[in-house]
Amino acid sequence: MLHRVRSAVAHLVSSGGPPGSGSSVLPTPASPNPIAHPVAPRSPPAGAERGTRASGGAVENRGSFSRPTFLQLSPRGLRRAEDHAGRVVQSPPDTGRRLPWRTGYAEVINAGKSRHNEDQACCEVVYVESRQARMGGPGKSISDQGNQGLYFHYWGLFDGHAGGGAAEMASRLLHRHIREQLRGLVEILQDPSPPPLCLPSTTEASVSLELSCPGGSQPCWPLQKEVTHESLVVGAIENAFQFMDEHMAREQRNQYAVGGCCALVAVYLLGKMYVANAGDSRAIIVRNGDIIPMSREFTPETERQRLQLLGFLKPELLGNEFTHLEFPRRVQPKELGQRMLYRDQSMTGWAYKKIELQDLRFPLVCGEGKKARVMATIGVTRGLGDHNLKVSSSTLPVKPFLSCFPEVQVYDLTQYEHCPDDVLILGTDGLWDVSSDKDVADTVDKVLSSFEPNDPSRYTALAQTLVLGARGISREQGWRLPNNKMGSGDDISVFVIPLGGAGSYT
Amino acid sequence: MLHRVRSAVAHLVSSGGPPGSGSSVLPTPASPNPIAHPVAPRSPPAGAERGTRASGGAVENRGSFSRPTFLQLSPRGLRRAEDHAGRVVQSPPDTGRRLPWRTGYAEVINAGKSRHNEDQACCEVVYVESRQARMGGPGKSISDQGNQGLYFHYWGLFDGHAGGGAAEMASRLLHRHIREQLRGLVEILQDPSPPPLCLPSTTEASVSLELSCPGGSQPCWPLQKEVTHESLVVGAIENAFQFMDEHMAREQRNQYAVGGCCALVAVYLLGKMYVANAGDSRAIIVRNGDIIPMSREFTPETERQRLQLLGFLKPELLGNEFTHLEFPRRVQPKELGQRMLYRDQSMTGWAYKKIELQDLRFPLVCGEGKKARVMATIGVTRGLGDHNLKVSSSTLPVKPFLSCFPEVQVYDLTQYEHCPDDVLILGTDGLWDVSSDKDVADTVDKVLSSFEPNDPSRYTALAQTLVLGARGISREQGWRLPNNKMGSGDDISVFVIPLGGAGSYT
Repeated sequence: MLHRVRSAVAHLVSSGGPPGSGSSVLPTPASPNPIAHPVAPRSPPAGAERGTRASGGAVENRGSFSRPTFLQLSPRGLRRAEDHAGRVVQSPPDTGRRLPWRTGYAEVINAGKSRHNEDQACCEVVYVESRQARMGGPGKSISDQGNQGLYFHYWGLFDGHAGGGAAEMASRLLHRHIREQLRGLVEILQDPSPPPLCLPSTTEASVSLELSCPGGSQPCWPLQKEVTHESLVVGAIENAFQFMDEHMAREQRNQYAVGGCCALVAVYLLGKMYVANAGDSRAIIVRNGDIIPMSREFTPETERQRLQLLGFLKPELLGNEFTHLEFPRRVQPKELGQRMLYRDQSMTGWAYKKIELQDLRFPLVCGEGKKARVMATIGVTRGLGDHNLKVSSSTLPVKPFLSCFPEVQVYDLTQYEHCPDDVLILGTDGLWDVSSDKDVADTVDKVLSSFEPNDPSRYTALAQTLVLGARGISREQGWRLPNNKMGSGDDISVFVIPLGGAGSYT
Repeated sequence: MLHRVRSAVAHLVSSGGPPGSGSSVLPTPASPNPIAHPVAPRSPPAGAERGTRASGGAVENRGSFSRPTFLQLSPRGLRRAEDHAGRVVQSPPDTGRRLPWRTGYAEVINAGKSRHNEDQACCEVVYVESRQARMGGPGKSISDQGNQGLYFHYWGLFDGHAGGGAAEMASRLLHRHIREQLRGLVEILQDPSPPPLCLPSTTEASVSLELSCPGGSQPCWPLQKEVTHESLVVGAIENAFQFMDEHMAREQRNQYAVGGCCALVAVYLLGKMYVANAGDSRAIIVRNGDIIPMSREFTPETERQRLQLLGFLKPELLGNEFTHLEFPRRVQPKELGQRMLYRDQSMTGWAYKKIELQDLRFPLVCGEGKKARVMATIGVTRGLGDHNLKVSSSTLPVKPFLSCFPEVQVYDLTQYEHCPDDVLILGTDGLWDVSSDKDVADTVDKVLSSFEPNDPSRYTALAQTLVLGARGISREQGWRLPNNKMGSGDDISVFVIPLGGAGSYT
């Protein structure tokens, strides 16, 4: 079956650079062979990222548009990738070195919605040198001090809007911000005892204050909370998103990065997979045919109450243009005095209220599904960038309503023996708009069962099939694809991350 | 087995008033026989509540403490119910008329934690007369106009704190507020077509305004949302909680009602069960042995981020006494300048921060589990009342951080054929502190299987067993109870609502 499919879709799929043209070297592979490095080696391998402090570093201004480096596109390949008419699906070359964990990847540009593909992607193995090692005195090499760093594996999808700058910047720098946040935790995460609640400072504070306890002499807080290693990693990823967002704010003032992006990243560290999502991309694990959701979408609909609460508490953010109340349709001036359905920040149900003058303002949140908008402007409520985004025909900033914080879900890989068909799928909304979780799980089963378990190209073939399916390639063209009435006209990017089988990350 | 149990626990259980003393008449039974009235009868049955507008009505000042009227306690029974040493479990009399749906109920006072039992309960069948019928002109009777009212069945548990006034007031009035909110919906809920988004007013508005649309001429909101009948009922219940809370604010100024209460209510209307929870009580359905959670608890731990966000956006609510940041233990003055674990309103993980002077303030949220507190004062974050609650030794009000809004979950009874062993359990935290959902489900199975399916006393026996178990009665006393190390010292109240079998609500 597969051979027929392969030939049928061959003209729709392109795998990276020209055959034999340096496809054995990834531009920033971080490590020559993922199998070769244990989690905490004595010294970082050549090529592992270890240097510049991202938050302080200058942003490289590439000037022109680019695709993920691991695609290894030649100038001609780049032109093909930007062809809205052909919409060729792009994947890394299937010869030579592969992405870590044999990760599969595929992407396709939109059908003319924007000039460039505004999705970006990143896949890296990142070495985290401990802060203590970096602060070692002159004349001492890192290995002399016996400080062992940590590795994490990293996959990121960035779905840009209003320009590709933010997505591109995030794809190049977010993992560095994560590394910075983890740097101070290297020794703590490798120590099995619970993390210290308080760390000494180098300068001694000499303040003497009396602590008062509300309620007087009662011991109001006798115990201390136990904090897990896992929650430190979650906190590090959350703060890395915030630093990345602040970094963009500085650069947007310098006009390097424009627009905003959703960010969905997976971080594998010390046996656990951390999936962090800010936006409307989605991650699922397909394990033994079962679907395990690993993210939630953040949209004007799912975050309605958070947005309305902010508008209620800070009405100055609404200007005189918006009301924090939601109505099922626009209120008309002639309806003043009548009673209309509404809901506020505290309600999930609806009730009637008498229409007053301020209810004629535009609702902060309106519309449904893909048409839902905050301030009639943007359809996602979390992500990076958008610092200059204003309400159309207005100077009112939208950013105060957007959150840069991801929701992080943790999956412990040591709790289950995974087989080669168990995968983590990361996809931008272009995939999920037209494919349900079930569609994707069915395709996982169909494609992977048609390959040998050890065939290294099976995960890329799966990513390609998912993208082709979402693009709307019909069955007649040789593949039994998800039952789409119409393919997505959006950019589509998909990572397929195998969770077991190859043993490449033990 | 049961007879042995019955005799073994007989001295611990009391069923209402003295035998034969009027136990065939409930004080406010609302309907003589639940089977006799369909959902929308032509005219309300004698005794159904139909009159006074609760929000405007005066509060009956009972003066002294009371127990739910359906317990039909004599003065002597009331004294027994208030005996902390015996802690006799109270239930409605098992002769004569029962609670609607054969509902089981049991309660017990605490072990001296407060003087009175601060839990209260209510079980009613409530008739909702349509607003149109009420507005009928003089000389026309209700039945003349052909307007049919609606019934809803209602169960409420109210777990009081800092006094029993709020719980007692809520137990007498919340269902009336719900009735008021439903009154304008009577015709709409009985009309199968979608609810109208806008209702005409009696006075015509004559305003002509130009509506501007952000983004200019684009059709920014082409569609209208569909609103379901179900979401109207949810909105009505949500707003009834708010009106009840405002009602208490007015009465607390008049010093009638003191303290606050958690509220957990179930409303059965037109085939659906609406379970609304504000506080740390809990509802579960046990269906064919499976557990279906019907509520979530609202505590400083589960609502941490909501509370911290409010403190962050409105720092004036924290005075100079509290910080919105959370720390795993109290920060000491000598730790100034050191780095301590913390998390803010956006984080679920933890990270280190350098301790500054304002971090020495007491955290808005602290402690764990039952010891978690908001402002070192209160352990629940939703409920009714508490309008005068201040931080100990301070004038800072706690109320701005408490929400009176319930979360409403809906269960459609028509989607499943229920057997007589399928029940909805409502319990105050005294039950759930020492019994897990699984413990309760096991007890449901054990007790109900020892009775004939048609035995009307089986649900009261189950409620009694659950309360006895949570009170900590050991197995040696004749019953295989949940595996508690120690019984709850709190007030405990439990409703057992059968979902099928008797056909009493079709």
